[in-house]
Amino acid sequence: MRILKINARTVEISRYADASVPGGGLTTTVVAVVTSAERGGRPVTGYGFSSIGRFAQTGLINERFAPRLLAATDRDLVAADGTLDPTRAWDVLMKDEKAGGHGERCVAVGTLDMALWDAAAKVADVPLHMLLQRRFARAQTNRVAVYAAGGYDFPTNDIERLCDEIREFLDAGYTMVKIKIGKKALAEDLKRIEAALSIVSGARLAVDAMNRYSPRAALEAAHAIAPYALRWFEDASDPLDFDTHARLCASYEPALGIGEATFSLPDARNLLRYAGMRPARDRLIFDPAHCYGLPEYVRIIETFESAGWNRQAFFPHGGHLFSLHVAAGLGLGGSEANPRIFQPFGGFEDGAVVEDGFASLPSIPGIGFEGRAALKPLLVDLATQ
Amino acid sequence: MRILKINARTVEISRYADASVPGGGLTTTVVAVVTSAERGGRPVTGYGFSSIGRFAQTGLINERFAPRLLAATDRDLVAADGTLDPTRAWDVLMKDEKAGGHGERCVAVGTLDMALWDAAAKVADVPLHMLLQRRFARAQTNRVAVYAAGGYDFPTNDIERLCDEIREFLDAGYTMVKIKIGKKALAEDLKRIEAALSIVSGARLAVDAMNRYSPRAALEAAHAIAPYALRWFEDASDPLDFDTHARLCASYEPALGIGEATFSLPDARNLLRYAGMRPARDRLIFDPAHCYGLPEYVRIIETFESAGWNRQAFFPHGGHLFSLHVAAGLGLGGSEANPRIFQPFGGFEDGAVVEDGFASLPSIPGIGFEGRAALKPLLVDLATQ
Repeated sequence: MRILKINARTVEISRYADASVPGGGLTTTVVAVVTSAERGGRPVTGYGFSSIGRFAQTGLINERFAPRLLAATDRDLVAADGTLDPTRAWDVLMKDEKAGGHGERCVAVGTLDMALWDAAAKVADVPLHMLLQRRFARAQTNRVAVYAAGGYDFPTNDIERLCDEIREFLDAGYTMVKIKIGKKALAEDLKRIEAALSIVSGARLAVDAMNRYSPRAALEAAHAIAPYALRWFEDASDPLDFDTHARLCASYEPALGIGEATFSLPDARNLLRYAGMRPARDRLIFDPAHCYGLPEYVRIIETFESAGWNRQAFFPHGGHLFSLHVAAGLGLGGSEANPRIFQPFGGFEDGAVVEDGFASLPSIPGIGFEGRAALKPLLVDLATQ
Repeated sequence: MRILKINARTVEISRYADASVPGGGLTTTVVAVVTSAERGGRPVTGYGFSSIGRFAQTGLINERFAPRLLAATDRDLVAADGTLDPTRAWDVLMKDEKAGGHGERCVAVGTLDMALWDAAAKVADVPLHMLLQRRFARAQTNRVAVYAAGGYDFPTNDIERLCDEIREFLDAGYTMVKIKIGKKALAEDLKRIEAALSIVSGARLAVDAMNRYSPRAALEAAHAIAPYALRWFEDASDPLDFDTHARLCASYEPALGIGEATFSLPDARNLLRYAGMRPARDRLIFDPAHCYGLPEYVRIIETFESAGWNRQAFFPHGGHLFSLHVAAGLGLGGSEANPRIFQPFGGFEDGAVVEDGFASLPSIPGIGFEGRAALKPLLVDLATQ
């Protein structure tokens, strides 16, 4: 087994289809990893992308990481049974990487890692969540708890459109939603939260400040929203300001969410050591594709478990098919869902059923990106370019 | 004033010219930033590179950061006096960058920032250290304390060649040297250290473990080398393992060095908060080009000063002309020097004088990269490509 070809392409990935809503200028890299493994007489191709919320990594992939995979031999890439082993390929990707500096390259590696898991599941002829359940000895499941994410600031009729979006989520079968705060004045954000609470209870509403508060503003916001007893308050301030986070933990009674902007095991260890987090309460939002891919994500989970946490505290960021498989395959608490935003990657398989806050799982082999009509032309074009 | 063109190129940058010594597979990006400012009827071009010890960032520069500079207007780039202001350009580079994830992009930004300072000093018609002294209100100086770095493991005749290298440094006017440890068994490294100590005293010898020790091995090594009373012991273990570093500080009496693999102000703050460092003793090795460039480096210095440190504790990593200007221009403790390794960037101007451990400063406008015969053809080719 060898990797025959890796094609990578930068694409824009906007928050809403509505161009009047600021898109954030975000991009992602889509990769097609063509292997020498065959199924039905055709080479198995794995697809991955750089998840959402940061930036594309096409340059790092083409310059540094794809060449390592392309140079790898059968011995470097396969398990004892002769099939592609993404955890072995991960060692190839990370060869000669230096300690420290966990940004960007962690996304580049995670993007290729996602494609390798897609290929491995296709070789095994099972959906990824089943491959992960076998590989990591987790119970099988046919559904995952999900919450719908959205609620960015709309430039006009903000409150009305926010409420419309939340009602749409509920109509689609979601029972829990997450909205953004931290960009406007606190009083404005409280109005948004109260509007949302007119539709869902506090136990079904999370807020995400996207790391935008100063230490002082984070503590003020926490004080103001504590009475709402929200499901969780996520990314209040700088993700590396463990001191502020520890003060939040000491003063804010409801759950906090953190981890989306933490990209490695050493950084996750520091969260554990210094950020004052509460195992029975707080939620961990690490994005597997942003933190060096699944092998490092599994090490992060195991590190938290060793410190007394339950893996039910993990709700991977992303809101796309890969996060869903990971949550199902590793027995996590649940997954974010982005049914409306970050298209064509946000959300799950076409026609996915969400009932009472649980999503059904895809049944086609691999991750199932090519099962999405809006995505398939891009992937076919990329694989054959 | 606008940025007219940015050309970036990846080049290999090996430790030793001797191909039998493992080069580390390292690369760097060289950039030429062509401005609309003119001197002598020709556009002013700034040159920068990604320093040494990590990897090239050509992809990130071309995809994400160069386009921002190229789109910037006069208003975004110039100071009140109408000349290029690299600290304003830095805000342009960092626009819409998200919190957390301080790796790779910090090098890409630092590379362009270096070229902008080169251009700004050329516009001002002074060597960079003089521009920095004016800008940051530091006393003028005509020399900088330097130490010679090298001492990597040689594949054959290691001890003999190590001693030859150290003698060469002393013959060239250096009085202090730094050698590498952490790759071999501790007993072997102790032999290297003792061989070096047969030539220089402990007060003139630093060792750098390049973050290679496990927490336990770091503490064992510290215990073993403490009796030598070395100048400093650098990068013992993982740069984000503050806990291990704090234990080293508590048990190891002589100075420690840290910071080379710390790439941002939030990470530097965590070093201050959690790593147990000792202001009057330890040495700070941050690389200005690796940690988002000079504006962020200055903020790191100021943050340490606010915490009771003296900027004499800063010895910037790199061992090239830019580090030398920064050490001179900001009034730091001194600079690394790489006279033999990482060519054609290692070391200072052609014919630089080192006497009694102090290096003379370049006198041509800017950083002076094009004053190096071994470098000039590459820069000319890059600027006109």
